[in-house]
Amino acid sequence: MPEAAHQIEVGHFFFIFIVILLAAKLAGEAFERIGQPAVLGELVAGVLVGQSVLGLVPVDPAHPYGAMVHVLAEIGVAILLFEIGLETDLREMFRVGPASLTVALVGVVLPFLFGYLFWHWYEGGVSLTAIFVGATLTATSVGITARVLTDLGKINTSEARIIIGAAVLDDILGLLILAVVEGLANTGSVSLFGVVKLFVLAVGFLAVAMAIGLTTAPLLFELVNRMRVRGVLVIFSLVFALTLAFLADRVGLAPIVGAFAGGLILSRTNQFDTIVEQIKPVADVFTPIFFVSVGAAVNVRILDPRVPANHEILIVGGALFVIAVLGKVAAGYSVFWQPLNKIAIGAGMIPRGEVGLIFAQIGLLGGILTQDVFSAILIMVMGTTLITPPVLKILFQRTETTGAAEREPAPVEQAPMRPEIRDLE
Amino acid sequence: MPEAAHQIEVGHFFFIFIVILLAAKLAGEAFERIGQPAVLGELVAGVLVGQSVLGLVPVDPAHPYGAMVHVLAEIGVAILLFEIGLETDLREMFRVGPASLTVALVGVVLPFLFGYLFWHWYEGGVSLTAIFVGATLTATSVGITARVLTDLGKINTSEARIIIGAAVLDDILGLLILAVVEGLANTGSVSLFGVVKLFVLAVGFLAVAMAIGLTTAPLLFELVNRMRVRGVLVIFSLVFALTLAFLADRVGLAPIVGAFAGGLILSRTNQFDTIVEQIKPVADVFTPIFFVSVGAAVNVRILDPRVPANHEILIVGGALFVIAVLGKVAAGYSVFWQPLNKIAIGAGMIPRGEVGLIFAQIGLLGGILTQDVFSAILIMVMGTTLITPPVLKILFQRTETTGAAEREPAPVEQAPMRPEIRDLE
Repeated sequence: MPEAAHQIEVGHFFFIFIVILLAAKLAGEAFERIGQPAVLGELVAGVLVGQSVLGLVPVDPAHPYGAMVHVLAEIGVAILLFEIGLETDLREMFRVGPASLTVALVGVVLPFLFGYLFWHWYEGGVSLTAIFVGATLTATSVGITARVLTDLGKINTSEARIIIGAAVLDDILGLLILAVVEGLANTGSVSLFGVVKLFVLAVGFLAVAMAIGLTTAPLLFELVNRMRVRGVLVIFSLVFALTLAFLADRVGLAPIVGAFAGGLILSRTNQFDTIVEQIKPVADVFTPIFFVSVGAAVNVRILDPRVPANHEILIVGGALFVIAVLGKVAAGYSVFWQPLNKIAIGAGMIPRGEVGLIFAQIGLLGGILTQDVFSAILIMVMGTTLITPPVLKILFQRTETTGAAEREPAPVEQAPMRPEIRDLE
Repeated sequence: MPEAAHQIEVGHFFFIFIVILLAAKLAGEAFERIGQPAVLGELVAGVLVGQSVLGLVPVDPAHPYGAMVHVLAEIGVAILLFEIGLETDLREMFRVGPASLTVALVGVVLPFLFGYLFWHWYEGGVSLTAIFVGATLTATSVGITARVLTDLGKINTSEARIIIGAAVLDDILGLLILAVVEGLANTGSVSLFGVVKLFVLAVGFLAVAMAIGLTTAPLLFELVNRMRVRGVLVIFSLVFALTLAFLADRVGLAPIVGAFAGGLILSRTNQFDTIVEQIKPVADVFTPIFFVSVGAAVNVRILDPRVPANHEILIVGGALFVIAVLGKVAAGYSVFWQPLNKIAIGAGMIPRGEVGLIFAQIGLLGGILTQDVFSAILIMVMGTTLITPPVLKILFQRTETTGAAEREPAPVEQAPMRPEIRDLE
């Protein structure tokens, strides 16, 4: 049989897919039973089956199977944000807009400043490295928070809306920071015109997509509703979400921002209920791939304190982790005039995820960050990712959230004829 | 950013996925409207977006994106056969067992004999090539037939059961033929012991899997039903299907045979209705990838009659196509004692698909088939694939099928709260 260098063996990919789904649901269930969020179980399952422990699930995009897992994970998190967009009231999003903007801005400025000053003190002088370390601390990875809040039935609180709005704005800010750090890494200078152009493109894309989408989607889905072949509604919803994700990617935004906008738009169609019901099993299949692959990317070896070379990395990583947490918690308190659970808002912004890693990778390849600094940043990213689910669960359950506009429980949480028992305690 | 040789760009894969889903559903709808089977539309859409026309959807497994499409297509056809297994009554399958076995055996022997004799006459002598040409004519690719019969609401007829049973048996026979042709290509000889071992392994796997599955699956799914986290039922059903598909692949059978067995087993669980309902949107998303990728692999260039080099290929390919059709139609008539639509049974066995291509590839790489003979076989495979949907539609609608045990319309065809209108005319 012809064997190309990167020939994929279908059976082996089936095996990886089985491991991901099985590990995610078994660990999710175990964590749920001990009172922890299911998504933390999925992340931990990912660590176990991932590169540094059992090695069953590759996530390196340069690895043929790793590339597949990576792509399916991105589809998974896009579908998750699409689902959350479907559940989100657009007017409520606009209502909390000023609060989201405040949280986003403060949550970018403070971690950057803290990180910069820390490195300035640690290295004893001004450097590009300090700017890069600061930049890696600014990003927010909203997938984990969104999943926890969905599982807790809190996705329709004002707090959740502020977090998601701030995360979308963070992504736009992250795009600009990326342009700045890439300019610094490659040429040592920054084109103000380029940065402004990016900003206009990103904001313009979202505005135009929402405007066109909100006017044409109801008509489009009336047509889809008249189609006769099987599965058109779920397929066209998915195509709609993926198309906006693809376009967002093309203007430099994260695909999830586009997918979220797609959900917001389709929540205004007449077919809304059926879309929510039918996209749910598809989300169930795809989203665990994202969380397991996030866990699988964790390298537990750099956490081993028995290796002397890890000591300084662990200490610096720990310091960055503290800065990362404090910076975002402070951002939550920046909306001091709101009668809301402010610490929960800040906690929801903690996970750094892949965006911080992208900045760090550019710094590493540009020779601005050493391998050790990169590893310390990795510790910060891993720590913020793993700590968020349990912290959010405590914060959202301890004090009742005060969102005045809290809607009735989301339809996605109570689809008919599902035998699962929701454990909201 | 680090760019490995095979780095995958997530956005580009989103684009390919969008093209596949959109092309499948638009063309499917168009064909449905002109009275043709939707799956023929999906196949034709695949030809259009595939390698030789628009080039939007790669299917070569050696191509990084092509490998992904290939793997997702295999998952798609596995889910399709899993769904069909869910809809199939195991006792009815056993009842038609003798008829299936007859159709399978005659449908392997006659096309092989016709193909061998044709080549013997054409080349003027006995040769390994004649054996290979005969072998490529024996396989049955059941995905297309199963989809057409599902769409027509005929999947629970005796004819459909005989076809699917015969296709499963064909896969076991194909496994043995593969061992023989591989032995001939590599060493020029065949180990009878090896062939018998393969046969025992394949039949033993199916028997053991069914026996263990039927006794343990109801208990397993009672446990799953008690789990609290979201999506466990659809995930565990999928994991069950994929695990059997993976194991089938490991004993040398097609993954779809395992997935079909998984469906047969789960049709006996208490959670059957919910599984059918929830697997449907997942199938809707994955199965079009299979049919579009089958179409995308079609190379229309070898069909161009303006190229003189194509003339002999077209004539030989046309002859093989006629043999392929007649051989399987005759197999349908082999169950002459049955009061059934025998020509429809034969027509359902016509598509050759990937199994025939695997034989042909072994012959090509072993130097036994020339590139021209390979292309002629490709024409036979493409022709049998594209002709089956419209022929089946005519045959199953013209004469009413006479399956005495025809069940009420399958639940998968009438899931509640779906706005689509089924066009059964």
